[in-house]
Amino acid sequence: MDVMKEITRRAKIIDGQVMSYLQGGDDKKLMMAVRHYPVAGGKRLRPMMAKVIAQAVGDAEDKAVPFACALEIIHNFTLVHDDVMDNDSMRRGRPAVHVLFDMPTAIIAGDALFARAFEIITDSEVPPEHINRLVKITAHTVWLIAEGQQDDMDFENMPVESVSIDDYLAMIYKKTAVLFECAAEGGALIGGGTEEQITRMKDYARLMGMGFQVWDDILALTGDEKTLGKPVGNDIRNGKRTLIVLHALSAMDKADPKRAKLLKTLGNEKASPQEIGEAIQILHDCGSIDHARKTAADYAARAKDQLECLPPSVERAFLSGVIDFAVGRKV
Amino acid sequence: MDVMKEITRRAKIIDGQVMSYLQGGDDKKLMMAVRHYPVAGGKRLRPMMAKVIAQAVGDAEDKAVPFACALEIIHNFTLVHDDVMDNDSMRRGRPAVHVLFDMPTAIIAGDALFARAFEIITDSEVPPEHINRLVKITAHTVWLIAEGQQDDMDFENMPVESVSIDDYLAMIYKKTAVLFECAAEGGALIGGGTEEQITRMKDYARLMGMGFQVWDDILALTGDEKTLGKPVGNDIRNGKRTLIVLHALSAMDKADPKRAKLLKTLGNEKASPQEIGEAIQILHDCGSIDHARKTAADYAARAKDQLECLPPSVERAFLSGVIDFAVGRKV
Repeated sequence: MDVMKEITRRAKIIDGQVMSYLQGGDDKKLMMAVRHYPVAGGKRLRPMMAKVIAQAVGDAEDKAVPFACALEIIHNFTLVHDDVMDNDSMRRGRPAVHVLFDMPTAIIAGDALFARAFEIITDSEVPPEHINRLVKITAHTVWLIAEGQQDDMDFENMPVESVSIDDYLAMIYKKTAVLFECAAEGGALIGGGTEEQITRMKDYARLMGMGFQVWDDILALTGDEKTLGKPVGNDIRNGKRTLIVLHALSAMDKADPKRAKLLKTLGNEKASPQEIGEAIQILHDCGSIDHARKTAADYAARAKDQLECLPPSVERAFLSGVIDFAVGRKV
Repeated sequence: MDVMKEITRRAKIIDGQVMSYLQGGDDKKLMMAVRHYPVAGGKRLRPMMAKVIAQAVGDAEDKAVPFACALEIIHNFTLVHDDVMDNDSMRRGRPAVHVLFDMPTAIIAGDALFARAFEIITDSEVPPEHINRLVKITAHTVWLIAEGQQDDMDFENMPVESVSIDDYLAMIYKKTAVLFECAAEGGALIGGGTEEQITRMKDYARLMGMGFQVWDDILALTGDEKTLGKPVGNDIRNGKRTLIVLHALSAMDKADPKRAKLLKTLGNEKASPQEIGEAIQILHDCGSIDHARKTAADYAARAKDQLECLPPSVERAFLSGVIDFAVGRKV
């Protein structure tokens, strides 16, 4: 199976499904702001996971469409608000909502997307007690995402020694993996899966999501600037406490001059490309990038193990392929 | 019945119920931000309405507690985000969330409150299909509140002639009345009311909410500065297109110099107390404040009519008293 091709094919179908839920509305300006990110596409991995798992577990891909679209809309709501908070001016090659309109409109558009997502979930053609569970897990997921975003911001202002690798892993679980986990749990539930299958699918998605985020951190240091669409090493300039940085700081002797050099560049927004290059070299030298690669590969392998609870099918093969894409992609 | 005393008594009970849903959470800073407005009290009219209507319709006040608290939490989430958008630095005599913490934390705290509200609704001890309807009407309500907030902001930047009284009424319906309507619909549903009762209770709450907001606009021009806690006439300085202003502009001849004078002060943030006083006098002179009083009283009378579908009870008497409070209060 050509996973990339299959992801693209499935993403196109989801594009139309998501946009069908973002029609109408009395306020034209608000609707434009609401549709601005969703219409610009994206990998659609979260809704894809919900749909494919519902299919793999119980031939219920169609029933999963409202829930799947709701999660993509929630993902977009978090992006709109994140861009306001981080003051990021571009997203998917287009101006951010708060730049194209203004900050208040971006806040409202995010809130409106969030509200619409819950309305959509209640349209799912599944038993009402399943709808309740979908609402409950989704609401709790958004709460955790909020905690993760808060942690991520707070970490940047904390002394680097006071953030542990466990803190980092807990943060990326909330910021990234939990929404994948929610997609998998909901998809398996809609598919009528057993509690055992639901748990396995959650584990699959959480492990995949953790690997996805660690890989993201690696890409941001080693990727190609053109493919990434942002400067390599921005995470270092922004002082992000990634697994790579935290590993390096704990691996190096406190007296090591390289450690002082790394700390000097970390969070220095005006660091030159040369300083960034040297910092990345230090991370290479102390094995921290290799360590992150190993960690991501380990998550990927454990994610794959969970798929054994599913009967062999084209969907199961695809879910396996998605892991290879998530941990190993260039974009 | 001493309505004010009964509101205060009921509000105290709701205070504790709301806060019981805002415990826990891994991130201490986020929890402080999340609890900052809810802990500061408020009239709690929305949860009160849900509980009292559930009781009046079907002796189900206790079952309405989660839904009622969820609505109060949603009300607080909109306040947190509104204060960011309007850059208001104070709320209930305390610094706004974005002032006490920072803007990103306020955005996240609002999102977290919103998420928690939906999680709470799913804990309601009512049939699952009723929970679905509660989620659906609440989600749709938040969508309409977002539209109303967007309209309110957009109106301030539009030529005053292009905003009609109907536009204004549609805006306050969304910004204010719709959350009361949602409280009443949910309360009546939880109480096991007939569709006829649910519709009447919605109408009661909508009419009460409209009267509440029109009365709010009157208070902001005629109230006592100390009781209000904000300068009289701020709405004129901010260029708010209230019913009173829109009525005055349509009542006066275009050539009337008083009309030009009013337009000059409207939206002039640096207007002196004397200029504000003169603008208010113009609004008095052309009967616009009396017209608004009549409109509010008309909403109140129509709201009372709806209560006839309920059997006589202490709750029905209280719901009637709430109207007199909402339209006629000094605070």
